[in-house]
Amino acid sequence: MSKTMKVGDSASVTKVFTEEEVRQFATISGDTNPIHLDKEFAAASVFGQRVVHGMLTASLFSTLLGAKLFEDGAIYLGQSLSFKAPVLLGEAVTASVEIIKIREDKPIVTLRAVCVNSKGQVVIEGESIVKVA
Amino acid sequence: MSKTMKVGDSASVTKVFTEEEVRQFATISGDTNPIHLDKEFAAASVFGQRVVHGMLTASLFSTLLGAKLFEDGAIYLGQSLSFKAPVLLGEAVTASVEIIKIREDKPIVTLRAVCVNSKGQVVIEGESIVKVA
Repeated sequence: MSKTMKVGDSASVTKVFTEEEVRQFATISGDTNPIHLDKEFAAASVFGQRVVHGMLTASLFSTLLGAKLFEDGAIYLGQSLSFKAPVLLGEAVTASVEIIKIREDKPIVTLRAVCVNSKGQVVIEGESIVKVA
Repeated sequence: MSKTMKVGDSASVTKVFTEEEVRQFATISGDTNPIHLDKEFAAASVFGQRVVHGMLTASLFSTLLGAKLFEDGAIYLGQSLSFKAPVLLGEAVTASVEIIKIREDKPIVTLRAVCVNSKGQVVIEGESIVKVA
């Protein structure tokens, strides 16, 4: 277990998902719902514009856990996600994770995971669970 | 609400994530952990081989909800994910969602979400919550 890891440790990343990235994710995942891809369809929808796949935005939590916060590696055990508001294409979002619990018996860590848009509105919230090296 | 929707309705999809798709997802998400990308690093790891990002495999649930099961569209409200076993690059996985609850007051649907590998081993399990049109 990382010797210096403690409750309150956090990491964050800001990202703008582009049209091209959303198209690539749609192709890789197979989620080709027109709300993500079709400008006219999205304009007529409840959102008024194309939105980024929720799971693509949520992948920023994986990025923070897998490539930022835990230098020695972490095994992803679980993630809960509550999608609170849409993320529009071209909109900046900031994802953050913060350690809220470290088990004493095992190197298993629980983190609060939150993603906000540029207005500070929470777009995703949940918890991550990882086993750290 | 879809008139014909009922508890027990399900959809599934089988997919093999390729090296190229995993690289693309790493680039889009920023999760460039070497366990997904570096053959030698992965060979020396607990997994022995490169593994697909858990959130990429989990995106198959989004695909089923957004582009398969609900013809008239669905708004993703929540997803829980428990990562039970790794998915190796080039390994076939089958994701399934099944309606387990439909609220009577609102068109909000809970689904069991499971992903298994070609040996029938559960690699991800969780629940999806969507609001349907």
